[in-house]
Amino acid sequence: MSLIKLYGMPMATCTMRVLLCLEEVGAKYELVPISMPTGEHKSPAHLARNPFGQIPALEDGDLTLFESRAIARYVLRKFKGQGPDLLKEGNLSESAMVDVWLDVEAHQYNPAISPIVYQSLILPRMYGGTPDQSIIDTNLEKLKKVLDVYEARLSKSKYLAGDFFSLADLSHFSYTKYFMATPYASVFDSYPHVKAWWEDFTSRPAFKKVAAGMGGHQ
Amino acid sequence: MSLIKLYGMPMATCTMRVLLCLEEVGAKYELVPISMPTGEHKSPAHLARNPFGQIPALEDGDLTLFESRAIARYVLRKFKGQGPDLLKEGNLSESAMVDVWLDVEAHQYNPAISPIVYQSLILPRMYGGTPDQSIIDTNLEKLKKVLDVYEARLSKSKYLAGDFFSLADLSHFSYTKYFMATPYASVFDSYPHVKAWWEDFTSRPAFKKVAAGMGGHQ
Ligand SMILES: N[C@@H](CCC(=O)N[C@@H](CS)C(=O)NCC(=O)O)C(=O)O
Ligand SMILES: N[C@@H](CCC(=O)N[C@@H](CS)C(=O)NCC(=O)O)C(=O)O
Repeated sequence: MSLIKLYGMPMATCTMRVLLCLEEVGAKYELVPISMPTGEHKSPAHLARNPFGQIPALEDGDLTLFESRAIARYVLRKFKGQGPDLLKEGNLSESAMVDVWLDVEAHQYNPAISPIVYQSLILPRMYGGTPDQSIIDTNLEKLKKVLDVYEARLSKSKYLAGDFFSLADLSHFSYTKYFMATPYASVFDSYPHVKAWWEDFTSRPAFKKVAAGMGGHQ
Repeated sequence: MSLIKLYGMPMATCTMRVLLCLEEVGAKYELVPISMPTGEHKSPAHLARNPFGQIPALEDGDLTLFESRAIARYVLRKFKGQGPDLLKEGNLSESAMVDVWLDVEAHQYNPAISPIVYQSLILPRMYGGTPDQSIIDTNLEKLKKVLDVYEARLSKSKYLAGDFFSLADLSHFSYTKYFMATPYASVFDSYPHVKAWWEDFTSRPAFKKVAAGMGGHQ
């Protein structure tokens, strides 16, 4: 069988989501770098992998996948039994809670935290731009409301979907890691259960390994 | 066993996603109306179901779920074997394609189509507001780019995830249905495979039934 190929950039948040899954299950894979600064993600070769011209994409034999959360599910299903069970698909209610909190990450957490990271880190460091403070402030308010919900949730269960670490938690890693490198990191200090959750999962070997590939932002 | 309770509004797009799944599998359920105009979705009773104060939410015995796509997966798993298999979880590559195109709906299609529907239907009809044409125009351009990809995809397979109808297709129903009631419906005429796909799935009995509950927009 041919090796799984992950096309992306190790420091891109969506690529990291998949990398973490591959590392958690100990899969063998090749990371094929796609250079966003040179526009390689819009090249015909990459558009054949993902017609929306985004990273990451994954190839496994004849199968080509994109959208990081869909790829993550595939990797975890394919290597089920290797490493921790991060989907809990054998259990109807546990898997439903994983799905709920994975959707919360995608639809509530990500929309609030990503503009802050973009404005305060990516824009100035990668594109030499000036952060728009009003965008940052609006989204800090949104993020705090989301963190209120997380704090309540994590005071009742150790992880988001229940007392087990899952894809729902993992999926929060990349943006949170970058957020901790912004001037706003101390926002998390007001949420002790969220902070403890964050410290717990950054101690996982897979996370240490992937964080080491993030370059200047470790 | 107690009856499944779906909390929402039959004309709200996210509620409709779940209603369609319940109808496809022929589940017995009770729809408990939550009035958004009176702010019932922000009441303590509803916040206990969904801490983000949104509809829909679902209760099945002790289990409370929110986020419409997560609820949809739960319903389809719970009633697996009843009605069509819309998740294909028994097949690694088919289920991966369902996940990919469900994420495409959430992350590419929905962000483009929903502001158009909001500006041209919901804002004027529900809130007496005036549509912002520049928002509509920007998102029509985005939507056309997405439809280019869909047209190419649907010229190769009958449905988004392959030659089988799935949750990925179903999930497009509510916003597309509303879009067809906007002045921009003819945009779809330039995409013959997308148009045929749309006509195919609106002929499904579950869709007819749920559309009948949409009120003035059928
Ligand atoms: N929903 C997609 C988002 C992917 C995404 O936004 N990728 C970024 C890099 S982190 C990208 O390729 N951006 C270039 C573009 O959108 O043109 C996923 O989860 O994979
Ligand atoms: N991602 C959520 C979105 C739910 C949502 O946006 N619901 C709307 C009605 S269609 C709502 O409750 N809006 C009120 C609010 O956000 O405060 C889902 O798929 O269930």
